[in-house]
Amino acid sequence: MIIERIEARDIRFPTSRQKHGSDAMNPDPDYSCAYATLVMKDGQPGGNGLTFTIGRGNDLCVAAIQGLGAHLVGRSLDEFEADLGLASRLLLNDSQYRWLGPEKGVVHLAAAALINAVWDALAKRAGKPLWRYVSDMSPERIISALDFRHISDFLSKDEALERLKQQADGKDKRIATLLQDGYPAYTTSAGWLGYTDEAIVNLLKQAHADGWRHFKIKVGGDVAMDVRRCALFRDTLGSDVRLSVDANQVWSVDEAVAAVKAMAPYDIYWVEEPTSPDDVLGHKAIADRVAPILLATGEHAHNKVMFKQFLQAEAIGFCQIDSCRLAGVNEVIAVMLMADKAGIPVCPHAGGVGLCEYVQHLSMIDYVCISGTMEGRVIEHAAHLHEHFKNPIEIRQGRYMAPLAPGYSVDIYPQSLVDHEFPNGSVWAEEPVA
Amino acid sequence: MIIERIEARDIRFPTSRQKHGSDAMNPDPDYSCAYATLVMKDGQPGGNGLTFTIGRGNDLCVAAIQGLGAHLVGRSLDEFEADLGLASRLLLNDSQYRWLGPEKGVVHLAAAALINAVWDALAKRAGKPLWRYVSDMSPERIISALDFRHISDFLSKDEALERLKQQADGKDKRIATLLQDGYPAYTTSAGWLGYTDEAIVNLLKQAHADGWRHFKIKVGGDVAMDVRRCALFRDTLGSDVRLSVDANQVWSVDEAVAAVKAMAPYDIYWVEEPTSPDDVLGHKAIADRVAPILLATGEHAHNKVMFKQFLQAEAIGFCQIDSCRLAGVNEVIAVMLMADKAGIPVCPHAGGVGLCEYVQHLSMIDYVCISGTMEGRVIEHAAHLHEHFKNPIEIRQGRYMAPLAPGYSVDIYPQSLVDHEFPNGSVWAEEPVA
Repeated sequence: MIIERIEARDIRFPTSRQKHGSDAMNPDPDYSCAYATLVMKDGQPGGNGLTFTIGRGNDLCVAAIQGLGAHLVGRSLDEFEADLGLASRLLLNDSQYRWLGPEKGVVHLAAAALINAVWDALAKRAGKPLWRYVSDMSPERIISALDFRHISDFLSKDEALERLKQQADGKDKRIATLLQDGYPAYTTSAGWLGYTDEAIVNLLKQAHADGWRHFKIKVGGDVAMDVRRCALFRDTLGSDVRLSVDANQVWSVDEAVAAVKAMAPYDIYWVEEPTSPDDVLGHKAIADRVAPILLATGEHAHNKVMFKQFLQAEAIGFCQIDSCRLAGVNEVIAVMLMADKAGIPVCPHAGGVGLCEYVQHLSMIDYVCISGTMEGRVIEHAAHLHEHFKNPIEIRQGRYMAPLAPGYSVDIYPQSLVDHEFPNGSVWAEEPVA
Repeated sequence: MIIERIEARDIRFPTSRQKHGSDAMNPDPDYSCAYATLVMKDGQPGGNGLTFTIGRGNDLCVAAIQGLGAHLVGRSLDEFEADLGLASRLLLNDSQYRWLGPEKGVVHLAAAALINAVWDALAKRAGKPLWRYVSDMSPERIISALDFRHISDFLSKDEALERLKQQADGKDKRIATLLQDGYPAYTTSAGWLGYTDEAIVNLLKQAHADGWRHFKIKVGGDVAMDVRRCALFRDTLGSDVRLSVDANQVWSVDEAVAAVKAMAPYDIYWVEEPTSPDDVLGHKAIADRVAPILLATGEHAHNKVMFKQFLQAEAIGFCQIDSCRLAGVNEVIAVMLMADKAGIPVCPHAGGVGLCEYVQHLSMIDYVCISGTMEGRVIEHAAHLHEHFKNPIEIRQGRYMAPLAPGYSVDIYPQSLVDHEFPNGSVWAEEPVA
């Protein structure tokens, strides 16, 4: 089981044509992914991983996957199985590539795709969905995957191990619960900034009929419009459902405080990305001034050191891990352990393409191995592009059903890859690209 | 004066062969740059900019320059002259590229090369070295180059303008001082981690004879070796010179505190990059525990929001701006204004290739327009690779002489570009590349 080469493909979906995914910072995303395949010697089954982008620059992630991927070529799955931290160390500690981050931006996104591809290959070989593959490990084995450098002042290896051991009791019961009832979710699909009011009302009603009880809408255009949107939401669905809002980083600190206070009468569950995702102290200042409304952030928090600080500063009320902004499963588990220590619920960022497929596994690992609870926790859901996946998410009454197929769920159908490859796939040949 | 196209080249110098630049995190850097040229219509003079890397992945910056550079093509220098913030807005607000950061990593590095190339073109057209081009502007015009989003909670536009106006008096005198005496510096060239003790002793003695009085050595290998190196330094040069140390991010918080305390008897001027460059709160914790020794950081601080927090938290005693980690002259000026407000000296990161050529201009702008003083301020100096530049730095008795040639000083000789282009230049053809 030797990795012979890495295949990396530039896959883009023209979502901007319908304003799917539009928000205050990102008016016209084309949901895209740099798609990495571990091609094994003798045609043996390998693994797939992807990193999510919104269009231009996806080619940079593809190139970075090809460059960094050289570190994996020639190694066997046995090596990665024997040392769960190996892929992360090989990819994150290349000092020359590291300079370009460190541990952020294109290189980190590319590392995520590759590290996740290794986890996919290992889980597939074990015949288990990723969440179950990890859940069946001993606490010691899970810890062996993690790097505590630069976070040990907040969470030591010994503490983390102790917590996993504490939670080992009851794992079987929690696995059974997941298999029966799935995991709670919320939906973002009704509230994109580029949609008309009429479209939003219709989508909200439909989603409510489908069983959704927690919704998120995009704000940050201008305050008057934000307030009107919140009012529209409450007029449509009443007070018995949860409403979160997402500003996608556009505000400075004072602007954020003013906007959140204006929306406060509409009972806001969380305010997401109120300002720069790098601004730990800014989030803290906003949080203090808008309490008891809580902040959520993380989809652009680029590594465990950023999450450590958001948690240390008590700046966030919800921890929104991203499956491929962080460097794959290893770094995500480290962050979930820190969130658990801080008593902050993990509510993953999803949507885009492949993110829902990914993060369902991560929330389930959090539930089974780390936090032991679903209380206050929800996985994001967006309705687009699942038809391209061999093992798409399954939603029932606003909950993610536990995935059962072996692996990490991001295998895309070959024909979808061919059609959406940029710039020559048929979807892109249809119309001229700017 | 229309930009017809962007030329981007992958230029690498094989510095790892002699361990130049080796430190605890980066054992074998090949100093490199992604070199951007604004090629003008009808062969009119354009501008050059570069972003610095240490080898592998330089190709990603080249590709990002080509991709992002499309935003500049077809525009005239007049437009950029009329609106000094235009290039930054075009390059940093492309929402699809922005997703890959935001404002960090490969995309931000590439934006820096392009933004600096525009400044180079404007200064050349004005017939002035960049520092003088900016120094001759009105406060209002300098402010027009800056973006206060996400920093206005620490420094407002009005405050910044007020400060520049306050310092407008005396500019002529300070310009005259610079032209006569230059700007103080320190040298890093004697203390790379990969050098032998004997090499270091010889280099220190030579540098002292050349007039240097402030030195920096690399630490972070192991504490006993760090202490031995500090002792070697004091044994060689005595107590009458300044010693700073640079750990290049390798420590966690507790390790940093222990190591700094062990070196404290050797009179350490600053401790640089003691831990992760993303860790504002970690720096603050270390600073509190090793006081009165001061911390310095910034060469990997990726944007103005990071610097804002280091300053707000009072985590650093020296602000080490980088000329192409930050998005060019615009973002650097914003950071220097914040450092001035906080009363923290700006001591730029340099070395590598082209960084000394760049940052001399920035410290001179800081002196003439912002802080009005050189007190406690030094520009980093490293001796390598200046021979490839048409207008290299000029050092006299440990001071940078004010550059006089028009532009931003990073024009590389055509033959150097040809010889060092990766992977086909003659320097790289000499021996196989791993």
